[in-house]
Amino acid sequence: MFERFGSGASDHDMIKEPLLSKNRTNTTSQIAIVGANVCTIESLDYEIVENELFKQDWRSRNRVQIFQYIFLKWTLALLIGLGTGLVGCFNNLAVENIAGFKLLLTNNLMLENKYFKAFVTYASCNMVLAIAASALCAYIAPAAAGSGIPEVKAYLNGVDAYSILAPSTLFVKIFGSIFGVAAGFVVGKEGPMVHTGACIASMLGQGGSRKYRLTWRWLRYFKNDRDRRDLITCGAAAGVAAAFRAPVGGVLFALEEAASWWRSALLWRTFFTTAVVAVVLRSFIEFCRSGKCGLFGKGGLIMFDVNSSQATYNTPDLLAVILLGVLGGIFGSLYNYLVDKVLRTYSIIHEKGPIFKVMLVITISLLTSSCSYGLPFVSQCIPCPSYLEEEQCPTAGRSGNYKNFQCPPGHYNDLASLFLNTKDDAIRNLFSPGTKEFHLSTLLVFFAAIFFLGIVTYGIAIPSGLFIPVILAGASYGRLVGTILGSLSNLDTGLFALLGAASFLGGTMRMTVSLCVILLELTNDLLMLPLVMLVLLISKTVADGFNKGVYDQIVKMKGLPYLEAHAEPYMRQLVASDVVSGPLISFSGVEKVGNILHSLKFTRHNGFPVIDEPPFSDAPELCGLVLRSHLLVLLKGKKFTKQRVLTRSDIMRRFKAHDFAKAGSGKGLKLKDLDITEEEMDMYVDLHPITNTSPYTVVETMSLAKATVLFRELGLRHMCVVPKTPGRPPIVGILTRHDFMPEHILGLYPHIHPHK
Amino acid sequence: MFERFGSGASDHDMIKEPLLSKNRTNTTSQIAIVGANVCTIESLDYEIVENELFKQDWRSRNRVQIFQYIFLKWTLALLIGLGTGLVGCFNNLAVENIAGFKLLLTNNLMLENKYFKAFVTYASCNMVLAIAASALCAYIAPAAAGSGIPEVKAYLNGVDAYSILAPSTLFVKIFGSIFGVAAGFVVGKEGPMVHTGACIASMLGQGGSRKYRLTWRWLRYFKNDRDRRDLITCGAAAGVAAAFRAPVGGVLFALEEAASWWRSALLWRTFFTTAVVAVVLRSFIEFCRSGKCGLFGKGGLIMFDVNSSQATYNTPDLLAVILLGVLGGIFGSLYNYLVDKVLRTYSIIHEKGPIFKVMLVITISLLTSSCSYGLPFVSQCIPCPSYLEEEQCPTAGRSGNYKNFQCPPGHYNDLASLFLNTKDDAIRNLFSPGTKEFHLSTLLVFFAAIFFLGIVTYGIAIPSGLFIPVILAGASYGRLVGTILGSLSNLDTGLFALLGAASFLGGTMRMTVSLCVILLELTNDLLMLPLVMLVLLISKTVADGFNKGVYDQIVKMKGLPYLEAHAEPYMRQLVASDVVSGPLISFSGVEKVGNILHSLKFTRHNGFPVIDEPPFSDAPELCGLVLRSHLLVLLKGKKFTKQRVLTRSDIMRRFKAHDFAKAGSGKGLKLKDLDITEEEMDMYVDLHPITNTSPYTVVETMSLAKATVLFRELGLRHMCVVPKTPGRPPIVGILTRHDFMPEHILGLYPHIHPHK
Repeated sequence: MFERFGSGASDHDMIKEPLLSKNRTNTTSQIAIVGANVCTIESLDYEIVENELFKQDWRSRNRVQIFQYIFLKWTLALLIGLGTGLVGCFNNLAVENIAGFKLLLTNNLMLENKYFKAFVTYASCNMVLAIAASALCAYIAPAAAGSGIPEVKAYLNGVDAYSILAPSTLFVKIFGSIFGVAAGFVVGKEGPMVHTGACIASMLGQGGSRKYRLTWRWLRYFKNDRDRRDLITCGAAAGVAAAFRAPVGGVLFALEEAASWWRSALLWRTFFTTAVVAVVLRSFIEFCRSGKCGLFGKGGLIMFDVNSSQATYNTPDLLAVILLGVLGGIFGSLYNYLVDKVLRTYSIIHEKGPIFKVMLVITISLLTSSCSYGLPFVSQCIPCPSYLEEEQCPTAGRSGNYKNFQCPPGHYNDLASLFLNTKDDAIRNLFSPGTKEFHLSTLLVFFAAIFFLGIVTYGIAIPSGLFIPVILAGASYGRLVGTILGSLSNLDTGLFALLGAASFLGGTMRMTVSLCVILLELTNDLLMLPLVMLVLLISKTVADGFNKGVYDQIVKMKGLPYLEAHAEPYMRQLVASDVVSGPLISFSGVEKVGNILHSLKFTRHNGFPVIDEPPFSDAPELCGLVLRSHLLVLLKGKKFTKQRVLTRSDIMRRFKAHDFAKAGSGKGLKLKDLDITEEEMDMYVDLHPITNTSPYTVVETMSLAKATVLFRELGLRHMCVVPKTPGRPPIVGILTRHDFMPEHILGLYPHIHPHK
Repeated sequence: MFERFGSGASDHDMIKEPLLSKNRTNTTSQIAIVGANVCTIESLDYEIVENELFKQDWRSRNRVQIFQYIFLKWTLALLIGLGTGLVGCFNNLAVENIAGFKLLLTNNLMLENKYFKAFVTYASCNMVLAIAASALCAYIAPAAAGSGIPEVKAYLNGVDAYSILAPSTLFVKIFGSIFGVAAGFVVGKEGPMVHTGACIASMLGQGGSRKYRLTWRWLRYFKNDRDRRDLITCGAAAGVAAAFRAPVGGVLFALEEAASWWRSALLWRTFFTTAVVAVVLRSFIEFCRSGKCGLFGKGGLIMFDVNSSQATYNTPDLLAVILLGVLGGIFGSLYNYLVDKVLRTYSIIHEKGPIFKVMLVITISLLTSSCSYGLPFVSQCIPCPSYLEEEQCPTAGRSGNYKNFQCPPGHYNDLASLFLNTKDDAIRNLFSPGTKEFHLSTLLVFFAAIFFLGIVTYGIAIPSGLFIPVILAGASYGRLVGTILGSLSNLDTGLFALLGAASFLGGTMRMTVSLCVILLELTNDLLMLPLVMLVLLISKTVADGFNKGVYDQIVKMKGLPYLEAHAEPYMRQLVASDVVSGPLISFSGVEKVGNILHSLKFTRHNGFPVIDEPPFSDAPELCGLVLRSHLLVLLKGKKFTKQRVLTRSDIMRRFKAHDFAKAGSGKGLKLKDLDITEEEMDMYVDLHPITNTSPYTVVETMSLAKATVLFRELGLRHMCVVPKTPGRPPIVGILTRHDFMPEHILGLYPHIHPHK
């Protein structure tokens, strides 16, 4: 009675993803790239588990508790904003000081004409920093490598990859990012900031260590996937806001790219969080203006000035901009294609062990240092322009447009001002008005170097953002086009650089509104909005013709089962029961402890249907669904009986709803934590109090497309499929996220045309 | 067998709303305000009707058709942008010229000291324009009165109020808005622009007249509620973009305030539409710069300059801003409260007939003219400041800061520069930097007058936006506070005016991100972003403590059954079957024509469950749901048989899926269009080909809260409730939008505490 091996559905809880991905993606010839860390993933559950305990708890909620919840919600939003803002300040401060010191050292040696010594100093500084970053990543928290945006995106879609939001990941992300950026890699701090924001939000929601349980009692309201999702959305928005100093852009990024579910109330809370970030950053900049921040200059928090005094434009200008957009789209999709290939290659190296990861980082570091230091030597020296009076030429400090490099006094090397600067300063130089001219060859060399360095750098074992490499490549490409077109267009070459950056961003990341607003907030100029919009629309359209956005691509490659917002066309040809796969294991309303334990031990299912049978009902009927985690807590409580009887009130006295609150990732009760005696194995336990009596169900003949929409829109983890005709067992199977994956469905029905 | 009067559910199609609202809102002591037009409303259906015809059509779709669809989708977005942009230009051009001419006339008479003649001219110009606007509204399209945003919001939530998007409404909205604004009423053109955009989108989606059927064949893909909803979302965004010249703000407005459902793909399309609007407006302004637009000056498309050179602020400034926000929130909610009261009073007058509507408009017009012309007389004359050299004082033209009015030469009247200008110019004057001082008394008088004129004007029978009155009142309030605080704060009084406007907007409309972006786009200054955010957050929070946002309030008062995004707490205590109300009428799979006709005639239900019975199945089982509109088309086709047999293939040959496409509002087949003979009444028709075999169902024991979430998230019109236990009829009832309305539920269960 308690175990049915019918036409059931399997309900995978924690799936060995590498295995699964390899099996499932045979048809599409893909392999999953997996570090040691991303081996188990868990689906999240946004459904409210309406069991009796929950209902009791809900009924007993009073005004004070509701106030506590609302107060805490906003306090957490405030804290997330504060935390992310402070980390952003710290990050900028550290990077500017470390990288600034390194560049000053190199510069001084150059001025003494000790070229080789300067190179050794520069390269070894870079390598030490690189080793530090990669060691942190490889040995402590492999989940911190890469951008982190794909993982956050997957989390907000309902996929929790192991330790992606753990405290160790946060730690490594912060310091790894600082070392990585300071090491001169072609990486940004923007993606890592988003991940950092999400980690901070997750940690705050958990309430830190268990020791301080008392202090954090209020946090029990947030120990569920729904509220945690909201917090992490706020965190992601705060990350973007901190990275780009773009509060509105942060909200829109969370909305457009990160979040899979959205509601109006969240918009407001996210906006509050990013406002807090903006205030923190502003205060920090005010503080640093007094010179207390060492080498942290104006350049720390990027904010670019673009000359748009030329507010009008005519047809040739528009044609130039359209050309820029089309080419940008092509380059952007090429970027995505190459990143994909490189990531697949690196994954083979990474699987050999952490030491190989570090070796790879060292190799790339050497390559980057050689390019940055070596390439400027091929550039011609240019005499300083005579009209420069206020601005120093050549530049003496660590940043500036007129780097002396190997040139004689009174001359400067324009390529060095791009390579031997922080990335933020390089972007600022590229965006600077057209009065400062870059040679065509300089821009070409820089563009080629950055384009390919950016591609080979992403995927090595350091926290690495994609925004800055893409902006750099795009800006140099745009300035290149602007310089070539020269007299044909009235637009400033600095504006061309900005539009080039927009076209590359559109071509790789495929965002529209959020990128537009981020660029506006970065450059503080609304007058060029129509041009930026135009370029973004064109480059996204062109690039969409070739492949998917870079983050979607990485999510897919990591084997994370991401649920798309819409159903695929071929799903209309199938019905829900077509994708149900057995065996289905169900429990009686009052079930034998031994059976439960057996099922928990020998399956990895996470949800089990509960079926009421005589004498508890007239005929077998579906009572609801119990979750693995709830069963573990219930068994731990040992409210067993010798007879098969209802013990509802006993259990309701013993447990409160928050005993079943979801623990942080990997912190919940395990099967091995239970010690059930032989005698207890034969006893019974009443499952009714913990059974969710309102699971979402579909009839087996429901079109798969509509079932998918239901599953996705409501953010479910389990969906019960019930029979259409009477006289059969009350449940046909359970559908989970994996059953809706195109690879899975097309694997089951290989004859289906995937685009029809 | 075909008609069950059991524990069924009624499924209201077109409900006489006044009746219903009055009945249902007894408990909450509300009455429905209804013009002659909003007497019938219809729910929209975003579910894909997966019947056999649809499936056949879907399978036969080829690449060309998919391309057609995508091409048309973007073409329509382009056309919506173009149309709305052009209407926006026309609107501005007409208003500026009409109002400008009127003001010039008045001004010239004033200069000749003919004060009484000037007043008569001014007041009679206003009255003529007012009568024109109100006559259009009262006699041609009553649905065009008011802002239109609440109706668009309700439409996007799934409620189609009669003729709200009809061509006549569009016509009246455009011209009524021009006359109304030119008549000097305290109304804006922004709300009407949103409605206009939505109407244009709706019309384009319908493909205009039926005569041109051939030309518009491709449009059949858009003849359903889902695609129409997307178009209208684009239209609403385009309207905001055209009104405020704020493309990003338009997208965000559509997202935050207008739309109830959102997807990422829509973000992009909306963004494209608003980009087109921005380009159109820009070209128009370029064109007008050459002076070809008559009196259309710089002022036409609002774009304000605020002096934010004072970029730093300290603690007293922040305290001042917080005070501003708190007071703004209180005033904002007071505004909403008073608007509500006034609307309820007006509704009584309006019910007496169109002539009373016109009379009311004339009264308000006289009041407005008297205030605008009379109040400046109480203001003191101020000598022109000596430092003014370039700027003329007193102003000679029609707009400017230094109106002479009744003052001697060399003096000016500061109140006249606010009252006797277009509203856009008045806002510009209030936002102008602090070097131009307004008297405290001037600001106080203006604030009080505008606050109350704004309240009494909204609701009269002219198209009237709420943005401009609220911005005007807020700006004068902000400038007042700024002037009072004076030396205590470093901030410019012009900036105070902007923040005051933000606080009022936040307090009445309760939007956050979109208002913030709109204000930024209006003023082209990102540096004061943190202050604007702060003010908006505070005023919204404060005002939310008192009442709902003004648009939500109006939606509710109009009796539109708006579905909130979240379930109410008390819904957890009920289950789905608690709110189904009988009788349920269902059909057999092959049903007698007479029965169908009888049911269509004597009920207003829109969806009927179809139940397969022996011999077509082993036991009674739910086959699906047929829609009234589909039944009418099927009956019109007369594919009847004498025997009770399946005639699937016959019907499939006779009909194509697009024969069942949804017609425009009020244009579908009516029952009276059918001519069924007595003989045919006894024949049978096979309903299977048009039965949606995948309706969304819930079990009767599903918690009402979760059923509500399902209904809302998926945008359903009907939800089938099925029995939990076997052996009963296969369907318990059907839930529709009205069954989820709090008033309905609390009417059924008066003992339930609504907030618990």
